[in-house]
Amino acid sequence: MKRKEFRELVPVEEARRIINSLQVRPEKESSALENAYGKILAEEIVTEINVPSFPRATMDGYAVRAEDTYACSETEPVKLKLLGNIPAGSDARFTVSTGEAVEIATGAPVPEGADAVVMVEYSSEENGTVLISRPVTEGENIMKAGSDILKGERVLRRGRKLGTREIGVLASIGKKEVPVLRLPVGIISTGDELVNPGENLARGKVYDANSYTLYAGVQECGAFPLLYGIVMDDEIVMRKALETAVSECALILTSGSTSSGAGDVMYRIIDEAGETLAHGINIKPGKPVVIGVIKGVPIIGLPGNPSSALLIFNEFVAPFLRKSLGAEVGIRKTEAGILSTTLRSEGRQQLLPVGLVRGRVYPADRGSGAITSLSEADGFIEIPPETEFMEAGTPVEVTLFGEVEKPDLLIAGGFCPGLDVLEDLTGLRFRTLYTGSSGGFSVIAAGTADIAGVNMPSRYSEGRKETLPGEILYNTPTIENMGLSRVVLIKGYRREVGLLVKQDSQISGLESLPGKRLINRNRGSGTRAILEMKIEELAEKKGISKKELTESVPGYGSGAKSEVAVCEAVLSGKADAGVGIRNCAEKNNDLKFVKFAEEEYDFLIRKEVLDIPEVKKFLQVLNSAEFASKLPIGLQVYERTGEIIPFE
Amino acid sequence: MKRKEFRELVPVEEARRIINSLQVRPEKESSALENAYGKILAEEIVTEINVPSFPRATMDGYAVRAEDTYACSETEPVKLKLLGNIPAGSDARFTVSTGEAVEIATGAPVPEGADAVVMVEYSSEENGTVLISRPVTEGENIMKAGSDILKGERVLRRGRKLGTREIGVLASIGKKEVPVLRLPVGIISTGDELVNPGENLARGKVYDANSYTLYAGVQECGAFPLLYGIVMDDEIVMRKALETAVSECALILTSGSTSSGAGDVMYRIIDEAGETLAHGINIKPGKPVVIGVIKGVPIIGLPGNPSSALLIFNEFVAPFLRKSLGAEVGIRKTEAGILSTTLRSEGRQQLLPVGLVRGRVYPADRGSGAITSLSEADGFIEIPPETEFMEAGTPVEVTLFGEVEKPDLLIAGGFCPGLDVLEDLTGLRFRTLYTGSSGGFSVIAAGTADIAGVNMPSRYSEGRKETLPGEILYNTPTIENMGLSRVVLIKGYRREVGLLVKQDSQISGLESLPGKRLINRNRGSGTRAILEMKIEELAEKKGISKKELTESVPGYGSGAKSEVAVCEAVLSGKADAGVGIRNCAEKNNDLKFVKFAEEEYDFLIRKEVLDIPEVKKFLQVLNSAEFASKLPIGLQVYERTGEIIPFE
Repeated sequence: MKRKEFRELVPVEEARRIINSLQVRPEKESSALENAYGKILAEEIVTEINVPSFPRATMDGYAVRAEDTYACSETEPVKLKLLGNIPAGSDARFTVSTGEAVEIATGAPVPEGADAVVMVEYSSEENGTVLISRPVTEGENIMKAGSDILKGERVLRRGRKLGTREIGVLASIGKKEVPVLRLPVGIISTGDELVNPGENLARGKVYDANSYTLYAGVQECGAFPLLYGIVMDDEIVMRKALETAVSECALILTSGSTSSGAGDVMYRIIDEAGETLAHGINIKPGKPVVIGVIKGVPIIGLPGNPSSALLIFNEFVAPFLRKSLGAEVGIRKTEAGILSTTLRSEGRQQLLPVGLVRGRVYPADRGSGAITSLSEADGFIEIPPETEFMEAGTPVEVTLFGEVEKPDLLIAGGFCPGLDVLEDLTGLRFRTLYTGSSGGFSVIAAGTADIAGVNMPSRYSEGRKETLPGEILYNTPTIENMGLSRVVLIKGYRREVGLLVKQDSQISGLESLPGKRLINRNRGSGTRAILEMKIEELAEKKGISKKELTESVPGYGSGAKSEVAVCEAVLSGKADAGVGIRNCAEKNNDLKFVKFAEEEYDFLIRKEVLDIPEVKKFLQVLNSAEFASKLPIGLQVYERTGEIIPFE
Repeated sequence: MKRKEFRELVPVEEARRIINSLQVRPEKESSALENAYGKILAEEIVTEINVPSFPRATMDGYAVRAEDTYACSETEPVKLKLLGNIPAGSDARFTVSTGEAVEIATGAPVPEGADAVVMVEYSSEENGTVLISRPVTEGENIMKAGSDILKGERVLRRGRKLGTREIGVLASIGKKEVPVLRLPVGIISTGDELVNPGENLARGKVYDANSYTLYAGVQECGAFPLLYGIVMDDEIVMRKALETAVSECALILTSGSTSSGAGDVMYRIIDEAGETLAHGINIKPGKPVVIGVIKGVPIIGLPGNPSSALLIFNEFVAPFLRKSLGAEVGIRKTEAGILSTTLRSEGRQQLLPVGLVRGRVYPADRGSGAITSLSEADGFIEIPPETEFMEAGTPVEVTLFGEVEKPDLLIAGGFCPGLDVLEDLTGLRFRTLYTGSSGGFSVIAAGTADIAGVNMPSRYSEGRKETLPGEILYNTPTIENMGLSRVVLIKGYRREVGLLVKQDSQISGLESLPGKRLINRNRGSGTRAILEMKIEELAEKKGISKKELTESVPGYGSGAKSEVAVCEAVLSGKADAGVGIRNCAEKNNDLKFVKFAEEEYDFLIRKEVLDIPEVKKFLQVLNSAEFASKLPIGLQVYERTGEIIPFE
């Protein structure tokens, strides 16, 4: 197998310069006004009419000559001859002379001769005359022709993105069709491993996400995406696909087939059919990027994995697309934030996916191009080269992943289906970081998360007055041991914990475990901790050491990162029993639940956020009857739910 | 004509309660993934597959058993038997035993038996074997099945607006069709004065803007707008239109025909066919609002004039639509700002359209429902009842008019076509407030605007060393007289000023003016000021008083608010001559230009903003050759262009 090494990586600024020097020519097309929302204006719009096109009454009342009213008052109203009535939309024509008036509706054209409108409140009609009881000044309650928009005025500039207001202005000056820009951008996904969503997923295959994320991203920039689908890693097929796209598009985005690995051919095709301008950008994850031109049409080859492709798209391509469509400022969607945690960097320049919750920025990179790096990130920051640390508190600029709706609350700790219920009932958007219970305490201490869901048991300790020997306390001892302050613990609900086994299993409790293969939870998980204590109790009862007991259970030292992984291990036969909450077993017909404890799942909250509306809403729902009724089986509110324990 | 008085106005909070109690039921429909951008998810999405669905190599290299490599090093590489090759997308099956390896590409499935991947950089092939020169640990360079997204995980919640990232997640788990919400909202514009954009505008008619702004606004909320067009102010026609809409929509928005004026019938129809819940909200401009229900379908009647309709839509309807589609927080698009000018209020609760430029908020209400109140406003603030003043510096919350692109620079002062050239070449979005030159000095002093275009002449004064008797200085004397500090004046360009007359006019200069009807500019305009000086000079030359001369010119005291208005007056024959710059005449074939002076049009800039990128860009363009070449006839850069005069 032949491998080609990467050429010299291009520095970031050089890559930007190359991309900005690419020539793309948007086409011009006509759009019906109602379909123009979000499109980019192709020409400046100069109005051909005055708005209003006639002097317009802004009140219901009587059109008069102002001087006729100067002397009137409530006690001495002036009497004017009533000539007629002009409703809105009427082209009835009157000429108002001294001593005359015409009834007029809001929006109707003020008749010749009249120069003011008396509000209906200061008038009364009788026998073909109208009595006016308050003077008006010239021009009062009249909007002059052209005083809103003057004929000949430039009302909108080329390159303006059409929003609600722009559409209102265009309608007001009578434009039914508007000239808009069309920038066709071809999208090609390459790779033998790709299949289309909706199709069967054979072994070794993955669904093509890039076609769809890039489609949406291109659309968001105001350009016009064209999907060319998945193309195999074959030079002939790929060249043909590129040829078609080159003939139909102003710019082509490919993804995949750009690295130095087996079967990656994109740069070779560009090199043969056109010119390669850059191969590899010196910023993580820009190494696989190819920039080239075939027959005058620029081609940008993005990394194959979805989160890297979207990072590079937002960093280099989206600003270029917006600029090509006429924007200069605002081509980058950014938001300022403060790092909520200290970052370590490997020293290489890097785009790091981050979450952004109410101005606080935290890393959201699951690594290796995980698609969840996308759904858990709101944007990314650039880490400069030769940076080892970025300290918590550093102000950073986050480039957003397009028009993102940011989360309302950042919730860490152990997973619980009760959180889904809370999210549904509050209507808030949770960003959840499943750090396990012990991780939950840490991120609250670090000030990263707003709330942590925790279920960490501690054994009775001599020094504590409120406990009885053997009693297990949840979370408060951990908070005290860690010396956390300026936090509150809100008591949550109780959860049934037990062994998850197959329906036909003979395992009936912890006593059955010796000799059986167990899949345990990871260290730091509250569930693992409560199992530990129950095993201790069992060992004591049996009169053996804890070590002796656990060594008799193969897999006791294992550590599945989630309950779902525990279920999978039991279902696949890799383990005979797993540890988890009842709810997991209930969701799966093939699993049986063998309870061994009830634990308390609580919420640790930074005091600082206790009064923000989102947290208030969270607590309000936690205390509601609806929440109690909607908790799934195995979870239950109790008398302590909602209890507040402050730690100053 | 019968008039009905408004019933009791409903307080704002009560109106919100009524609207939030309305029942609208979104429909569910299926959307192809590529069309799902911006739509609202109708159901929660639980993944049915693991992502990745197999253990996946994250690097090009060799799949091995990690323990085989523990002892190797660069000097003592371990030799493994090469079983074969797995490219990405392949389902080639191998079982790797001790002493064996399989070549593997990034993205390919890791074969049975292997538990790590050695990067290609640390290996070399020879004769069916591979030499490994660096140890790997278990799991290295492998992404476990389900480690990105676990089968059974809830990946997206009902009510989520689908953006780029959500679409990426849906594609990754193989969803081709997604369940989305469809909330059909009918839009009806009423009023005899309305015609459709694109049609001929007869006298007394105005173009229907509300159909289009509401269409875009409804779309922006994620709902589905349906246009029912313009309906005449006729009970039978209107009832029929409402009946159709009631049978097809979940909510109906009408505009117009809701006030107590002549021919307004909306509330009567709702009253007869259903139930009126409110008629009039006690907030300006909510007086004409009607809220009712016909056959279970809510109807909200909005004011007829476009800016009022959009204010009420954004204040009451848009949050309700977003909420009905599942959002709870984020239902109101707001941005915090600081009032840059003191507001006076009439004491009534009010929604005031405002502009928002880089966090500074200023009123943008042209009054009387001007459509330009829309295009010049980015949103609105709520002025509480019984408020007489809101002081400059007060923090306010601006409710945005949907997804608005805010301006980059706020520019006040006198109008000049050179500003359009600057806007085009900078690519910046200017918000222009045509305050006239003298207004320009004031808004800079008040700190409202960033830049003011000024052309205010002052006569030579004895105290000044640098001037000669008779010489006219521009702008600097005004700055000194006003005592402005912390500003800089940037010299702009020269403009030819003169009389605008009809082509066949005999007027050949200021001397011809006596006896002719003049249309002058408003007080505070620099053009009026330079005319004043030239008239003084002429009077001196003629040996008469200035007063004598001006009294011989009818209309000398007039004050058109814009140059376009001046042109209109001359073209319509209302005046024989107007005053303005050459450019105005050049744009119109029927006008001739008779020059009487050259003036200097400069830019007054607050020092505070001198270093922001937008102002830097502005100045860079002002000094560019391209700007010089693109200035229209009658405007010209000169040796002082770009000169900086600071005032500390």
